[in-house]
This record gives sequence, structure tokens and C-alpha cells, in this order.
Amino acid sequence: MRACIIAVGSELLTPHKVDTNSLFLTERLNDIGIDVRAKLVVGDDVDELARHVSAAIAWADVLAITGGLGPTEDDVTREAVARVLNAPLVLDPGILEGIRRRFARRGMEMPEINRRQAMVPRGAAVLPNPNGTAPGLWMQYGKCSIVLLPGPPREMQPMFEAVVAERLAPRTGGVALFRRVVRITGRPESDVDACVQPVYSRWLSRAVPISTTILGVLGQIELHLTARAPSRAAADAALDAAVAELQAVLGDSIYSVDGRQLEAVVGDLLRAQHLRIAVAESCTGGLLASRLTDVPGSSDYVDGGFVCYSNASKIDWLGVPEALIAEHGAVSEPVARAMAEGARARSGAPVGIGITGIAGPGGGTVEKPVGTVAMAVMVGGESRARTSRFIGGREQIKFQATQGALDMLRLMLIRRAAP
Amino acid sequence: MRACIIAVGSELLTPHKVDTNSLFLTERLNDIGIDVRAKLVVGDDVDELARHVSAAIAWADVLAITGGLGPTEDDVTREAVARVLNAPLVLDPGILEGIRRRFARRGMEMPEINRRQAMVPRGAAVLPNPNGTAPGLWMQYGKCSIVLLPGPPREMQPMFEAVVAERLAPRTGGVALFRRVVRITGRPESDVDACVQPVYSRWLSRAVPISTTILGVLGQIELHLTARAPSRAAADAALDAAVAELQAVLGDSIYSVDGRQLEAVVGDLLRAQHLRIAVAESCTGGLLASRLTDVPGSSDYVDGGFVCYSNASKIDWLGVPEALIAEHGAVSEPVARAMAEGARARSGAPVGIGITGIAGPGGGTVEKPVGTVAMAVMVGGESRARTSRFIGGREQIKFQATQGALDMLRLMLIRRAAP
Repeated sequence: MRACIIAVGSELLTPHKVDTNSLFLTERLNDIGIDVRAKLVVGDDVDELARHVSAAIAWADVLAITGGLGPTEDDVTREAVARVLNAPLVLDPGILEGIRRRFARRGMEMPEINRRQAMVPRGAAVLPNPNGTAPGLWMQYGKCSIVLLPGPPREMQPMFEAVVAERLAPRTGGVALFRRVVRITGRPESDVDACVQPVYSRWLSRAVPISTTILGVLGQIELHLTARAPSRAAADAALDAAVAELQAVLGDSIYSVDGRQLEAVVGDLLRAQHLRIAVAESCTGGLLASRLTDVPGSSDYVDGGFVCYSNASKIDWLGVPEALIAEHGAVSEPVARAMAEGARARSGAPVGIGITGIAGPGGGTVEKPVGTVAMAVMVGGESRARTSRFIGGREQIKFQATQGALDMLRLMLIRRAAP
Repeated sequence: MRACIIAVGSELLTPHKVDTNSLFLTERLNDIGIDVRAKLVVGDDVDELARHVSAAIAWADVLAITGGLGPTEDDVTREAVARVLNAPLVLDPGILEGIRRRFARRGMEMPEINRRQAMVPRGAAVLPNPNGTAPGLWMQYGKCSIVLLPGPPREMQPMFEAVVAERLAPRTGGVALFRRVVRITGRPESDVDACVQPVYSRWLSRAVPISTTILGVLGQIELHLTARAPSRAAADAALDAAVAELQAVLGDSIYSVDGRQLEAVVGDLLRAQHLRIAVAESCTGGLLASRLTDVPGSSDYVDGGFVCYSNASKIDWLGVPEALIAEHGAVSEPVARAMAEGARARSGAPVGIGITGIAGPGGGTVEKPVGTVAMAVMVGGESRARTSRFIGGREQIKFQATQGALDMLRLMLIRRAAP
């Protein structure tokens, strides 16, 4: 079954407001196997809303509309839907009485304007609203179920829970959607897609079909797997098998199949191997330490870090030899190594990371353009270093550098743990 | 003129993702007097996308579509639009060459799959993308201007700025919207609103009317002022007067009226006073140093920082007396002060910040619950310290602590500069 969600309200079309009701609705609809295929935000204009409602009921099995059920002239949802369904608006005495009583309980008389909220398209079922004056409405038009919900989340959410339980779930036949996110780093999106496309294209035709979306985000790629299954157990079995197939082609490039971010994965490896870490950062300016310490419980394995923005601080705080900087330049693998070694020596931690680079926009040269970053990782007696050229603005370069260094450490820790 | 925005991507139809590109697009369209009348999110399905595009071009003067321009099978925007416009997709050799060169610059060969990104509907104008492989596209269909933009904000935003300046603004003429953002920190939203509501309520009825939105975001409050005026000069005069009225009631609580973030404001004050800074962080874990160094050119005034997660690192790296920690606890103003002093002593910088606190979720006590943070700031011979209790999760507490410390420094620097 396919659903469409429409959020009504001109304030949702301004530059600083997003519709978040649709996230709740999507989750609840997915839970009972209904796919959300489109989300719309429409202003308080009866003609425009009617046009969008009319288009949606032509294809959707479920149309959920939030907002526009208040008492003012701006609240046009009832009118728009009535017009599209060609159902006259009639006064529902039960709703009117409910609204009157609600005002009376607060010692107030119902303003005349609130009568609007008691007007319903003929034939609509009324959904009670214990948390506000606007009742919800439920209508069937051909194969499309239409549900009108109030905008405030605390009124909308309990009402929709009841709609799902009593009206929608009994019709879906028990198939639901289950998701898994696979995270990959260190490879370009097109390369990952070329590897996995032959794999995931087979999944759609299986007994438990799995659809896949590839999402390239800064410094990593996400594969979103969605299984359609009659139970969580069936979905988990299918998703486990699918993830195993991805791991067979992508190997260690996959860093997480359970929602964890890279800093949490690295943290768990450090904790499991009883290793503590200290870092030394130049161009990333503390972002690496900040990401490591974003993880709850990271004091178990993080000793701390040094942000060495100047050459003097690299020399004074970390003992990087001045001659090394003079010979190779501050942005070089030998200096990154000496920084990692310095952080280890100062802290006594067995794991050290050194990052030095040019985050821009200034400071680039022909030989070392903006985005050039040298990274070194030391774990016990082992060390690795590499130099990358990252693309993007200052904050993007900083992030990618931390991602690169964390991934180097992850791979070293995995190999170290292997028998 | 009426605009429609469509965000393409199945991941945007999941329960945990919202489309934020449309906020930027809305702001820029509003700036030139174009009204956004509907926003849609549609999945990676060519038939469904084509249906929505077809409906939109029937009423919209401008249709902006973001996403779905990548190289994979999932990326169907080009195909859907070509189908609706009945324009065949043809290979654009210029785009292909650009993509090849982009890969070559990173020493890579272009994967065959990226050829897809060089296919354009016949007759479309190509919008260059300096920040990625996917070019944008511009088409005219009847009265509707259609612009296809890549999904990643850092690729989409500069491209759309160019589209607005070169293609859309010349067609709108007349009255436009002009915005100003006033940023405030250190006061609760309700308090700010009570102060400023009598001020901004007068602005709506002026010759150049200004509407105001209050936006409480983590650790700060933003006032968005929107003037409707026939020219930038008229808008600027009205906005300058409005900002002056706000400054009269809010004083130093306003840290920025020109779009700068707090770390940039503090950076500019340090630069103007020829002061260098070093920081010492415990619970913020490097976030303060990272924010300071997010600002281009921050190497002019940032020496660096110490992330001291353990007591041992506070003692060994910064010379915090062990007895001080034993007497007051690691989370205390005396320790924050000693950390700031240690950072200054190690670096020779005249400005030092020390932050120590409990970011949670573990580590809280009855006396010092999660969210308790001690901050100390030293500038030359002056010092200030305070303890706050921040609310929220780990990352929220970290951010608010950096915000609090930066604002303490800002106020000290302002007073220092005053005659």
C-alpha cells in the first residue's frame, strides 16, 4: 500500500520551518507495511490544497493530511477535501457539543468562530481529539483512505495511533518494512555502486524482498536496506544474509552494519583491545578529539589530545624536531608521525594519531594545495602514514581528514585482532 | 511568481530524514520576491517523479528540483524531466570532459557509470558545478522555468546563488524581501521575547514593513527580520534602524547582526586586539578548539589547545595541582582556572580558556549532575569563572559549554576595548 502525506500551513513554507509530523506518520505507516511515496507541504489556500488532494487520491491508498483544522479563515483543509470529494460540509452536532463542553470546562463560552470546526464533509467518520478542539476526520474515496489530523503533535500523534490500530493495520495483512543501514568509508560512491549493484539487484525478487538506496554523504557512503516481511524475525534473517553478501564484496570497507558511527566503531575496538589513545591535530583543530569524545563512555579509552596550530606548539608541546619541519615541511608524513609519537609519549597511551594539513581557504601551494592532509597512526610497534587530497570547504576538509585517520586506525585495530 | 520545490531521494521518505535544501531555496527565492507555494519530497522512482513534475509545471512559474543527479541507477531526475518535457537525453561532451578531468585531478580514471551524469535533456542549459561531478540543468517549458540541482548543499547552494543572480532575479523586478539575522546568547528565549515584542510589533505598520520571527536554537536565539522594500537601500535603512532599537533593549546580549557566528565574532575581537589564545578542554573534548579553528584565518590568533580527558593529563600536561583536584573535584571553577592558566603558560598566549564538566550520560552526582560545567577565561591580568548546568544530551551539553565560554571571552574583550 502506498501513502501520501500532506502538511498544510503557510508557515511551513517559510525558510526556517520544517514539517516534522511526517516523520512520525512515516514511522507508524512503515511499521504496518505502508510505504510513504510522497510528502507535500502546501499553504493555507483552498484552491491549491484541493488541487494537491485531488492529485494524491488518484494514486495513493492512504492520504494523511495534517493541519488546517483550526477555527480560523486560514484553516481550509475541511473545505478543500469536501470540495474534491464533492461532499457538502454539514454541521456535526456531536462535535459542536464537545467543543462547547471543552470551553465550558475552562469557564469560557465557545467563540462563534469555533463552529467551523464542527463542519464535516458528509459521510466522514469523526476521530475524537482528547487533547484539543479540532477533531480528526476519516473518509473513504474509492480505494483511498483519507485521514485529516490536527497539526499540533500532541493532538495528532495519539489520534493517529488509534487510526493505525483500529482502521489501517487490519487492512495491511501483517507485512511491514524493516530497515538496516550499512556504512562504508574510504571508497568513492561510484566504485561502491559498481561493486554492489549486481548484488542488491537480486534482492528485490526474493521471498523477503529488499530494496536498496545508496547515499553518498561527506566522507562516507550509506546503503539503506529496506526489507518487506511478515515479521521482524523473517526480516532480520533476510537482512543478515544481505549484509553478509555486501561484506563478501566490500570487506573491511564496511565499518558499520548496526547504525554506529565511525568514532563509535573505533571506540569499541579500542575498548575491546584495552588500548588508550591520544591525538595530535593541526588542521583538524580539535575535531578528531571532539568526535572521539562525542561517544558516551569514551573516557574509558581517550586520554586526550593536542591541538597544535603553530609550528612552535608542535615543537614545544609534542617534541617534533624543528629540523624535521624544516626538511619536510609542517604538512608531511614525517611530521604527522612525529606528532602521533609526541602525543603517545606525553600521555603514555599506546595509540597515537597525528594529523597535519591545509584546510584552506588560504595556505595552499602548487606542491601542497588546499586539502592536502598528512595522517599518521601508531598502534604499539606498528605505524601507518598517508597523504590525501580532500575536496571541499574548510569544514569538509576537516571532517574528511578525521574520517580518514579514524578509518586507518580502524583497519589497524581489526588486523591486530585477527588471529 | 509562484515556485514549487521538489526534493528527490527515497532516503528523504524514511522516518529520520528531513529535506533541508528547500529552506535555503525558499530563502533565496523569497529574497527576489518569488513565493514558494508547495514543497514535495519524492522517492527515486522515475514514473512517480515524472507524475509530480508534470503536475508542478502546470501551475508553477519556477520548479526547483534537488537531488537524483548522481551517477547511479537510483538517480532518475534527468530521465523523469526529459520524459515530461518530451526531450531526448543526449550526451554532453563538455560535461563528460569536466567529469573526467575532475577524477584525473585526484589521479583516478572516471568510472564508466559517471557517463550518466553527462546525459542532458536536449535543449537544457548546463549549470557548472565547481564542487562536484553532477552539473545542474536549466530548462524553460512554457512559462515554467525548471532548474535541476544536485542534492549536497555545498554543491547546490553556490549553483543556485548563480541561478538567482543571473536567471531569476532579472525577471522578478519590483518589491523584494530583505533579511537580517540578529543573534543573541546567554538569555532564555521567553525573556528575550518579552523584551523585544513591544519593539518589533511596531515595525509591521511602517513604510518599509518588517516582520520578525524568533528562533530558539541550541545555546542561542535568532531574530529573523524580514523587510519588504523596493530596493536594498530602502530595506537596509529600515533594518539598520530596527537593529538599533533591538540593541537599545538587549545591549551586549546581541553578539552578531551581520550573520557571523560566535566563534567568528570572538576571532575578530582577538585579531583586532592582537591577542593569541590557547584553550584547555575536558568535557568539550576539543569542540571549542574545533569551533575556533572553523574560522578561515584563525591561525592568526589560535595557538592551539589541550584536550585533557583524564586527571593525569590535566596534571601532567597543564600543571594543574593534584591537590586542587582533590580539594575541589575535577569539575570546579578552581580547576577550570588552573587549566586556563596552564594552557596560557604552555603556549605563552595571553588569552586562555579552561572548561571542565560532566557531559553525560554517566558521571553525574547529586551535587554535580550531568550538565554541570565549570568555565574559566583569562585575558591578561583579568579572569572570570562561572559554573552552569546545561540541559540536553551529550552533544548539546558540549556545544552549550563552548558557547558559554566563548561568550564570556567576548564580553571580556568588549569591555577591555571600551575606553
